[in-house]
Amino acid sequence: METVVGDAFGRVLERCHAAGGRPGVAFAVVERDDGHIGVHDAAAYFSGRDEWPEAERRICAGLTGRVLDVGCGAGRHAAVLAAAGLHVVGVDTSPGAVAVARERGVDARLGSATALPTGLGAFDAVLLLGNNVGLLGSAETAPVVLAELARVTVPGGRLLLSGIDPFETDDAEHLDYHRWNRERGRLPGQCRIRLRDGRLATEWFDYLFVSEAELRALVDGSPWSVGRWERDGHGYAVRLDRR
Amino acid sequence: METVVGDAFGRVLERCHAAGGRPGVAFAVVERDDGHIGVHDAAAYFSGRDEWPEAERRICAGLTGRVLDVGCGAGRHAAVLAAAGLHVVGVDTSPGAVAVARERGVDARLGSATALPTGLGAFDAVLLLGNNVGLLGSAETAPVVLAELARVTVPGGRLLLSGIDPFETDDAEHLDYHRWNRERGRLPGQCRIRLRDGRLATEWFDYLFVSEAELRALVDGSPWSVGRWERDGHGYAVRLDRR
Repeated sequence: METVVGDAFGRVLERCHAAGGRPGVAFAVVERDDGHIGVHDAAAYFSGRDEWPEAERRICAGLTGRVLDVGCGAGRHAAVLAAAGLHVVGVDTSPGAVAVARERGVDARLGSATALPTGLGAFDAVLLLGNNVGLLGSAETAPVVLAELARVTVPGGRLLLSGIDPFETDDAEHLDYHRWNRERGRLPGQCRIRLRDGRLATEWFDYLFVSEAELRALVDGSPWSVGRWERDGHGYAVRLDRR
Repeated sequence: METVVGDAFGRVLERCHAAGGRPGVAFAVVERDDGHIGVHDAAAYFSGRDEWPEAERRICAGLTGRVLDVGCGAGRHAAVLAAAGLHVVGVDTSPGAVAVARERGVDARLGSATALPTGLGAFDAVLLLGNNVGLLGSAETAPVVLAELARVTVPGGRLLLSGIDPFETDDAEHLDYHRWNRERGRLPGQCRIRLRDGRLATEWFDYLFVSEAELRALVDGSPWSVGRWERDGHGYAVRLDRR
């Protein structure tokens, strides 16, 4: 018997949600294509604004109007912003995540960063927070995502991203992975991963960890320009402005 | 790249130990040969007597003399009993577990239930607690383990085991696994598993979940007789007496 392709991420979120979002109940298991397994508590997806990284809180100050949260998960950002009175639409590829985000007050829809649902209208701001700069995917897909998000953003609107510098580590397993990625012509932090829960496993997908220099290079030539850069330990949050 | 065979379990215990045994830091990831992934917080291996299941506390009452804890892990039972003045020797196949148990005051040695270290001497009691009835492994290896443990137990000595009834579940993935095991001539709860952490994975091994009836059948004809049976929800703790 083998893993069954399905919504492992959504099932983890649903289990955590059923437990009131408390820690110690449901865990997200991330398998990388080098055999690496990582685990984090799904309660992180239910955290409030106080638990967002400081750089994310700073970059979100002054948000107004219509906001699109891409890869909204359980609504860690979207539910908070919706509760604060913003008109927030969430998008996630996981049906379970969409169901949980809806129960938490988010107007959530099924969809991905490369193929947004139709009829969303235009947004004043788009969010790729919670390290969702990763949804840029790869050097090849990043321009597609940046163009797709620009398409639904008003002129002068903003794109907020957060991430972690992949090179700020001394973990030999991560450094080996960077080397392997370079050998096969990928960005070092381009992680090919899937989520697992019980027998369920998502499809494999690319999630991109990039340094400041790498992200600036990806943004260069896109419909976006860097407006603000907030650093926070090994993490960062960035505001891009729609040209 | 693939997983690297190594002491995944020990590395998880060492990480949890370095964090003072607190929850939320290190997680044991158990992969089953049907692709099932399960996760539990390694802090469970550092719990005190108050957090042992009630049935284990009851079955451990009145322990005296020399005690052998097989599959001692971080010393969840061994460290508590050693601190209470018993002469406890722990055995584990994981070098990391042995190192952690030693730091926690246990006379721990490398070894397995089928091949105990030499020169251990004789014990008044042997422990297979913390669900370590699982170390019986299979219908084929259980007699070997029961004989090996009897070999180091004084006449009239006891073997304490705890476990969980595998049939007390409505989880379709577990029920499918039981069916698959029956098809391939294994006991339904005979789980072929390995532990994973980062790129490390242990070798695959069999860990046996058995019902009361199954365990009684395995004990029948062994050098042991059932002395006491404590039930506790879906779990149980058993005292076997050396014939």
